[in-house]
Amino acid sequence: MKLTPAPADKFTFGLWTVGNRGRDPFGDFVRPPLDPVRAVHCLAEIGAWGVNFHDNDLVPIDATAAERDRIVREFRAALDATGVTVPMATTNLFSDPVFKDGAFTSHDVRVRRYAVQKTMRAMDLGVELGARTYVFWGGREGAEVDAGKDPIEAIKRFRDAIDFLCDYARDQRYDLRFALEAKPNEPRGDIYFPTTASYLGFIPTLAHPEMVGVNPEFAHEQMAGLSFLHAVAQALEAGKLFHIDLNDQKPGRFDQDLRFGSESLKPLFFLVKLLEEQGYDGPRHFDAHAYRTEDDEGVWDFARGCMRTYLILKDKARAFAAHDGIQTVLAEIRGDGDELGPYSRQAAAALEAEAFDRQALASRRLAYERLDQLVIDLLLGVA
Amino acid sequence: MKLTPAPADKFTFGLWTVGNRGRDPFGDFVRPPLDPVRAVHCLAEIGAWGVNFHDNDLVPIDATAAERDRIVREFRAALDATGVTVPMATTNLFSDPVFKDGAFTSHDVRVRRYAVQKTMRAMDLGVELGARTYVFWGGREGAEVDAGKDPIEAIKRFRDAIDFLCDYARDQRYDLRFALEAKPNEPRGDIYFPTTASYLGFIPTLAHPEMVGVNPEFAHEQMAGLSFLHAVAQALEAGKLFHIDLNDQKPGRFDQDLRFGSESLKPLFFLVKLLEEQGYDGPRHFDAHAYRTEDDEGVWDFARGCMRTYLILKDKARAFAAHDGIQTVLAEIRGDGDELGPYSRQAAAALEAEAFDRQALASRRLAYERLDQLVIDLLLGVA
Amino acid sequence: MKLTPAPADKFTFGLWTVGNRGRDPFGDFVRPPLDPVRAVHCLAEIGAWGVNFHDNDLVPIDATAAERDRIVREFRAALDATGVTVPMATTNLFSDPVFKDGAFTSHDVRVRRYAVQKTMRAMDLGVELGARTYVFWGGREGAEVDAGKDPIEAIKRFRDAIDFLCDYARDQRYDLRFALEAKPNEPRGDIYFPTTASYLGFIPTLAHPEMVGVNPEFAHEQMAGLSFLHAVAQALEAGKLFHIDLNDQKPGRFDQDLRFGSESLKPLFFLVKLLEEQGYDGPRHFDAHAYRTEDDEGVWDFARGCMRTYLILKDKARAFAAHDGIQTVLAEIRGDGDELGPYSRQAAAALEAEAFDRQALASRRLAYERLDQLVIDLLLGVA
Amino acid sequence: MKLTPAPADKFTFGLWTVGNRGRDPFGDFVRPPLDPVRAVHCLAEIGAWGVNFHDNDLVPIDATAAERDRIVREFRAALDATGVTVPMATTNLFSDPVFKDGAFTSHDVRVRRYAVQKTMRAMDLGVELGARTYVFWGGREGAEVDAGKDPIEAIKRFRDAIDFLCDYARDQRYDLRFALEAKPNEPRGDIYFPTTASYLGFIPTLAHPEMVGVNPEFAHEQMAGLSFLHAVAQALEAGKLFHIDLNDQKPGRFDQDLRFGSESLKPLFFLVKLLEEQGYDGPRHFDAHAYRTEDDEGVWDFARGCMRTYLILKDKARAFAAHDGIQTVLAEIRGDGDELGPYSRQAAAALEAEAFDRQALASRRLAYERLDQLVIDLLLGVA
Repeated sequence: MKLTPAPADKFTFGLWTVGNRGRDPFGDFVRPPLDPVRAVHCLAEIGAWGVNFHDNDLVPIDATAAERDRIVREFRAALDATGVTVPMATTNLFSDPVFKDGAFTSHDVRVRRYAVQKTMRAMDLGVELGARTYVFWGGREGAEVDAGKDPIEAIKRFRDAIDFLCDYARDQRYDLRFALEAKPNEPRGDIYFPTTASYLGFIPTLAHPEMVGVNPEFAHEQMAGLSFLHAVAQALEAGKLFHIDLNDQKPGRFDQDLRFGSESLKPLFFLVKLLEEQGYDGPRHFDAHAYRTEDDEGVWDFARGCMRTYLILKDKARAFAAHDGIQTVLAEIRGDGDELGPYSRQAAAALEAEAFDRQALASRRLAYERLDQLVIDLLLGVA
Repeated sequence: MKLTPAPADKFTFGLWTVGNRGRDPFGDFVRPPLDPVRAVHCLAEIGAWGVNFHDNDLVPIDATAAERDRIVREFRAALDATGVTVPMATTNLFSDPVFKDGAFTSHDVRVRRYAVQKTMRAMDLGVELGARTYVFWGGREGAEVDAGKDPIEAIKRFRDAIDFLCDYARDQRYDLRFALEAKPNEPRGDIYFPTTASYLGFIPTLAHPEMVGVNPEFAHEQMAGLSFLHAVAQALEAGKLFHIDLNDQKPGRFDQDLRFGSESLKPLFFLVKLLEEQGYDGPRHFDAHAYRTEDDEGVWDFARGCMRTYLILKDKARAFAAHDGIQTVLAEIRGDGDELGPYSRQAAAALEAEAFDRQALASRRLAYERLDQLVIDLLLGVA
Repeated sequence: MKLTPAPADKFTFGLWTVGNRGRDPFGDFVRPPLDPVRAVHCLAEIGAWGVNFHDNDLVPIDATAAERDRIVREFRAALDATGVTVPMATTNLFSDPVFKDGAFTSHDVRVRRYAVQKTMRAMDLGVELGARTYVFWGGREGAEVDAGKDPIEAIKRFRDAIDFLCDYARDQRYDLRFALEAKPNEPRGDIYFPTTASYLGFIPTLAHPEMVGVNPEFAHEQMAGLSFLHAVAQALEAGKLFHIDLNDQKPGRFDQDLRFGSESLKPLFFLVKLLEEQGYDGPRHFDAHAYRTEDDEGVWDFARGCMRTYLILKDKARAFAAHDGIQTVLAEIRGDGDELGPYSRQAAAALEAEAFDRQALASRRLAYERLDQLVIDLLLGVA
Repeated sequence: MKLTPAPADKFTFGLWTVGNRGRDPFGDFVRPPLDPVRAVHCLAEIGAWGVNFHDNDLVPIDATAAERDRIVREFRAALDATGVTVPMATTNLFSDPVFKDGAFTSHDVRVRRYAVQKTMRAMDLGVELGARTYVFWGGREGAEVDAGKDPIEAIKRFRDAIDFLCDYARDQRYDLRFALEAKPNEPRGDIYFPTTASYLGFIPTLAHPEMVGVNPEFAHEQMAGLSFLHAVAQALEAGKLFHIDLNDQKPGRFDQDLRFGSESLKPLFFLVKLLEEQGYDGPRHFDAHAYRTEDDEGVWDFARGCMRTYLILKDKARAFAAHDGIQTVLAEIRGDGDELGPYSRQAAAALEAEAFDRQALASRRLAYERLDQLVIDLLLGVA
């Protein structure tokens, strides 16, 4: 079993993940800032392929043009020195108080315009550093007070911004795809487009649907207790899995962004299996952070752990496919017979005439308990 | 305030709702069966506009052709006598053991074929009695054991069935639209297409997307703690709100199907406001049932209560629109200025050159606490 | 209906509530610090009875003795000038990084000792300013990694601290009762003693159980989807409701601390009814804060709203008791007959010999739908 | 690794678990009734130690005395023939419509009396067959309509019943302990005493607290998203873990009663570790059932799986204790220094005088990410 991460595994981390300083609603920072250049070197050292960022993870919101240039120059030098790539970039449209009631969906048209301007500049920065995927997470696009915002108007405003930015990217001849990231709540009481599927429904209504996909995040679907596997499967089936955020989370609570594989071993096994078997070839991005109890050394324990567990689960996915007992059950539970096929009057007439023995069909054995136990054995390493 | 329901209010109930007999996983029936003919008469009496049914709510799964004809004849007579309509029909693809592992997504092609045949016959029945909307709720289309089912294959199988049935309806020249109804779990561990938005993402991939929309149910989104208001708004904005299931539910627990407005007064106020203001003109269908502690008389208390609370909330929506204090805050929170507008190089250049005063923008007052308290006052009747 | 708050209503706010500056995990402060002296004056103006604080809400953790004395002197002067009381005080054992892995339950005995010392000093401060109730909320007493902490040892450590502090209060002849406040999670993955009932089970194991009770918080039970009404009822029945934290919250998500009555109108109606009818005479403490979108003016809108809704619901509780329709149903649903009474051989023999008609008993009418609709009408002001 | 269950492992199943027939709110029975005698023989064959039952699992509610005697005689013969024990028994106070609004907490005193009578007879039956633990699960003791029931009165009624039954057991000289089982909701909207801790708070208020403990069930705490580990730890620490119900469940949804270890590998590992290390010597009772998709053969797959996973996790608990890497981290994270100790004036004075270096204490390394990854490795079998 190969458990040493290599660039070919396409593991990526955000500057904000390994750079997370451990502040939470009830307590202050516990770790010092992490210099982006050092982050790149450390990521290279542990075998990561890439690093992603929000504009202000790299360049402070108040930086002068000269500061921006120096920061970008030094960052690029670190990338060049290490071979670390920048596959994805995104915009911070949530930290500054200007976005307190939304960015693209703000009531104030000036805030909406500023958010689009900020995104254009952040896209320029991302593309300059090599990004091919641009993520949109609208952390403040939501409401606590539904009296104050028309949710239909919010959708229209969001569409206007995305359409504008698609055209900007096309006009700039950027080789860039957009990936929309959903979250049900936090920091807003409710966030618009709460699930990955909300964006799958929204994308076909855009002016350039072909360049827009989704960036599902495990923790975000898990917060609502929804099956992440099924959400990612729908995105894949629709050809819309443009990026993915891997982490862990307990359902029904605050956004935890835990180390990948630290809680949800079985669901994440099936996720890794799906990604690998479906040939997803984008980044495996870990959008998580170390526990607040960790120091700097612990941050890198955390990062190594994310990759290690992914590789273990990937190996188990291979073992699943090669497991005789499992494959036997899988073969048995699949029935045979003529497919429904496309509609025709003849097909419909034939179907209407067909007789079915409900009791016989109902009594067919489906050895799911046996199958599931074989999976548990496989996961626990006693197969 | 008009609180007496009338057919113009378009209130509908399912036979399975007023006919619910109170069985649950831990206890037996507490109420006798409700004869469909009597149901129609009682619904007429309390001011309902329509009655909906699953095929087997009306015609038992084992009925002979003669029994079917007699039942339909008597039911139609009751409809004619009372003026009660049948706006919607649907198929029971979940009660019989034959569907224990799914209907359209079963591993057994014979079960899938039987499910399509059963739906064709149920569509015939529904259309015969006047239905214009056909609902699909795939209660068994899901899994407890993800090892046993490929979720991508499940989506494809579901699409095959819907496409076939769309063509069947078209070929029969049925004036019928399909409305897909989502639910996250129960009775399956996870149900495919867990939210309304899952279907909004699925519909554009169908062969006849124009004839397929959604049937959101309050309790089902609420089970996952998602905003029903926002889900319905997205459906409306996409032109896909073909039907709606109204009831009540506490989040994060089993499917309760409570009397409309019995728990979630504020969310349901905004829902009614949205439906009324957006001109939704379909049925207001109550998919709920009386507490298991009720007898027959209590069933009709329950039904009357659903309609009464809807009418109260509708009146409050009118009061909201006419409330000076509320409208003043709403006017204040909306900023003014030039819209973003469609993309052009000039627009982009202008935007890039624009200077924004973040602190000034951030300090703009948004009196949401005041606004929300005015809404609470309105709801509590002390405005 | 009297809706103007007065000191006799015993409404209290924490310095940290009206002083909340709107920082959250994804964004910075949006409001400037609120001077405690100004807080007292504003609270007096809006009709609050009292103000509560964590030690460091009033006196910074790094203050010198001289600074402390000046702050306390000025604060007391504000109290004297306004008549505002300090009914409760508590310790901040969660903000400083020293408590990153717990205070009373830390693995490091020096941290545990420091936490007890800090609490002793904070008790001194609270008592000096008049507090009669001392609240313990162990925000960091929990774990993300169960491998790292023995939960049984955590209970023992927590007990040692509480027992020590009880003795300290007794030795100082402080007229002080302790109130333990539970929360299921956030900021820790899981917090020990996750519910009010956990403390009701813990208190009888203390050295001085008579001086320790609970401080239930609506949002905290609501996060786990539990009935706050039932939790408070159990605390009252056990004589342990020493304090209460009122606010609002949607279930199954991050800690929202919303304005009292902004979401959960029905549950909070029954809560107010219970408190008023059971003669609870402690503070009605609002542990909540204004939306992050608010400015200073909005903070006071928020505070006024909490009290206003409490008074409206209190009035509706009176109306419930006087409502003929409601009281008629309540009288009907109560059966009559001989109570079970205490055990004796004769009573047991009589009971064993008794014959019951299950069907007759089961068929008894319980008009809960009707009753609940009358409550909804009452809440909506259409009774 | 020993993975063959033996009576010494004390695995038990309820008749209602292996006998579950797969009915749910949306579908009918899929499996035929399981004869109790056959259940005993099958359980013996797979290595179970004991079998538990509700009175009506064994003896139908309408059985004559002669039928009861015959059933008990045949059941006892099966026990004798196989060596299977009956460690626990309980009462069905939820299936029959007579209990539709509660048993011990019903408004109707005749229902309350009947429930106590039924429990006395069921205790007689249980004791006759060897039970030493008697479980109380009040499935119908709750409400959907809080207007209809005073929750304080419900507590008092429940106490009256338990006190009466304690005295009955004592008077009969039954060697029997009571174990109270909590559940937050389902089938009632809210159930009184929703968590294990609710009963830990209730027990000290009983007339005979020493004979009453708790029966925590994994699924029930998990439904509310609470840590089962911490709940069981509190019960153990209080000396109140009299029985335990093992199964599996996803949080925030209907009661699933899944095969032990099928979902929550990490939480259940820590649970097994706690039980084994704390010397819990009661039954390991599996309160779960096979998926509705299973036939009879699958039921026994299910039962074997429960025991197998328990034994695997027990083996991993041993490996945890013997794991050098894990034990090294555990040793490092424990600080040293003088314990707080009991209160005295001198101890308090010394503590008040003590100086603490907050920054130094805060900077102490706690390698929880490393530790947790070692546990994940251990669970996945790659340690």
